Amino acid sequence: MNEKIKEFREYRSAMNEKLLAGNNKVIKRIFNLDTNTYMEGALSTKVKEMLGLVSSMVLRCDDCIKYHLEKCHEQGVTNDEMMEIFSVANLVGGTIVIPHTRRAIEYWELLHEK
Amino acid sequence: MNEKIKEFREYRSAMNEKLLAGNNKVIKRIFNLDTNTYMEGALSTKVKEMLGLVSSMVLRCDDCIKYHLEKCHEQGVTNDEMMEIFSVANLVGGTIVIPHTRRAIEYWELLHEK
Amino acid sequence: MNEKIKEFREYRSAMNEKLLAGNNKVIKRIFNLDTNTYMEGALSTKVKEMLGLVSSMVLRCDDCIKYHLEKCHEQGVTNDEMMEIFSVANLVGGTIVIPHTRRAIEYWELLHEK
Amino acid sequence: MNEKIKEFREYRSAMNEKLLAGNNKVIKRIFNLDTNTYMEGALSTKVKEMLGLVSSMVLRCDDCIKYHLEKCHEQGVTNDEMMEIFSVANLVGGTIVIPHTRRAIEYWELLHEK
Amino acid sequence: MNEKIKEFREYRSAMNEKLLAGNNKVIKRIFNLDTNTYMEGALSTKVKEMLGLVSSMVLRCDDCIKYHLEKCHEQGVTNDEMMEIFSVANLVGGTIVIPHTRRAIEYWELLHEK
Amino acid sequence: MNEKIKEFREYRSAMNEKLLAGNNKVIKRIFNLDTNTYMEGALSTKVKEMLGLVSSMVLRCDDCIKYHLEKCHEQGVTNDEMMEIFSVANLVGGTIVIPHTRRAIEYWELLHEK
Repeated sequence: MNEKIKEFREYRSAMNEKLLAGNNKVIKRIFNLDTNTYMEGALSTKVKEMLGLVSSMVLRCDDCIKYHLEKCHEQGVTNDEMMEIFSVANLVGGTIVIPHTRRAIEYWELLHEK
Repeated sequence: MNEKIKEFREYRSAMNEKLLAGNNKVIKRIFNLDTNTYMEGALSTKVKEMLGLVSSMVLRCDDCIKYHLEKCHEQGVTNDEMMEIFSVANLVGGTIVIPHTRRAIEYWELLHEK
Repeated sequence: MNEKIKEFREYRSAMNEKLLAGNNKVIKRIFNLDTNTYMEGALSTKVKEMLGLVSSMVLRCDDCIKYHLEKCHEQGVTNDEMMEIFSVANLVGGTIVIPHTRRAIEYWELLHEK
Repeated sequence: MNEKIKEFREYRSAMNEKLLAGNNKVIKRIFNLDTNTYMEGALSTKVKEMLGLVSSMVLRCDDCIKYHLEKCHEQGVTNDEMMEIFSVANLVGGTIVIPHTRRAIEYWELLHEK
Repeated sequence: MNEKIKEFREYRSAMNEKLLAGNNKVIKRIFNLDTNTYMEGALSTKVKEMLGLVSSMVLRCDDCIKYHLEKCHEQGVTNDEMMEIFSVANLVGGTIVIPHTRRAIEYWELLHEK
Repeated sequence: MNEKIKEFREYRSAMNEKLLAGNNKVIKRIFNLDTNTYMEGALSTKVKEMLGLVSSMVLRCDDCIKYHLEKCHEQGVTNDEMMEIFSVANLVGGTIVIPHTRRAIEYWELLHEK
């Protein structure tokens, strides 16, 4: 696995562990909800992950973007589909989203490396 | 047609006209792009309109929400699908999105009135 | 009760009902969490409501502000305390928060009417 | 004067008065700063008001937009200049800014009525 | 002192110095206000710092979060209280706040190292 | 050229290339618009770049800020003018903008190094 992806995942899971160790019910439930929200339902997980990604892009949260890029990759989102998600995010959110899109395309390519 | 929907559409199109009459190239192109972005492509118009809606919800723009609700309605998005879009928006964007979701459900129901 | 307060509460509860009738688990749990988060804990409900209010102000959500103003009022927040919450919100969030503060002071006064 | 402009100004000044009556030093100083920031300096008041307007647009605060539209009008900003400010705001901030631009063009025209 | 804390403080104070050297009255007064706002008043400094922290979290500004974490630490905010501040921020601001909360818990722990 | 400036520019142009290679019409047109918007018109490029900068500051996008700082530097914006742009951004956007202003002053100084 690429070093940047590994690093992102390790930091993410180490800190999530610390947060959950804080033993706060609300935090725990928010983490739980985060898992449930993207499960298959009336909408497929694939579509929901695309919704999660575009939301993260217009709200400009790089780590959230990386996370949903990983999920979209797992769900088989293609390059052309990804470019169209990027286009909605940049149209709705404005050019302020471009720098985040640059980091997104970089991470998206890393996810495709063998 | 419901009075609130009519009013929204009339104000929207009257003011768009004024804006385009301003004869500014950039504004015109942004309006053009807005149409092109949601056309059928690698992703269906239906999925793209859902992406547009969820983006509008987390960015908390009531008029944008109304617009994409109309488009989602045209695209045959069901009630259950809509509730799942709402759930992603409220999870990612937080409870700050709830008041906009209240206005969204109201408008969504108006769109189903005969 | 003041007419504006009544109207706000009625719309809020009618639309919440519609949302919950949608029978979406994630939405329901977010509503539940919203109640649990502000319960007495390591921090008092009073302090938590002030945290909820200042968050709503810097995120500039008028309905959220009204809701937390009501709760702060129930918790006995004084005028001087309220002005200091306003001051933090306007300092951190900038003058963009002023129009929301104007609507907040109006609603805060309505809550004190007999 | 147009009724909508009058209403906006009256509400604004009545509520500012209430806020200042709260006698909170920080609030008072923020209001003072708000006046000082836009005074002639290395940049003209005209340019500064355009900076204030574009900031209000991308942050999507309708009342702030109205206020700076009034000031820009006083400073002799032309229609073509205004359209270019709108174009920067809509490009940088995205189509989410369009509904605020619709309300801005409406108010801008009211300011030109005799 | 931990190296990361030291680095944060040094960069912060070096750049603040440069900004103040710019000799701009408005900037200077904003810096002054920033100090005054959190002084003991109707609300304690402790509560105000918690308000500053939660605002920084929902607005998702990592450096602001670090700063207020330091102040909360000085004011004796406990781990359980901190977890409840985190819970309000993540509920109101949504899961988009989680990555900032991960960095916050890391910094909060660094502040407790001897 | 300073190493940090070089690095910023290289990453920026490498990733823009990747994005444009994605061959998505909407993305391409947004990039085109981004160039056209700041051309001489009713407003000078200088003023427009200042508008772009202040927008980037209140929306708190560091890379966008760097980009417009470069353009403002090319347009001959002086230190005093820059400080006044900073003052508007920090007043309107609040103290949440300060950390971005710290990074802005650092980059602004790098641009003046020989």
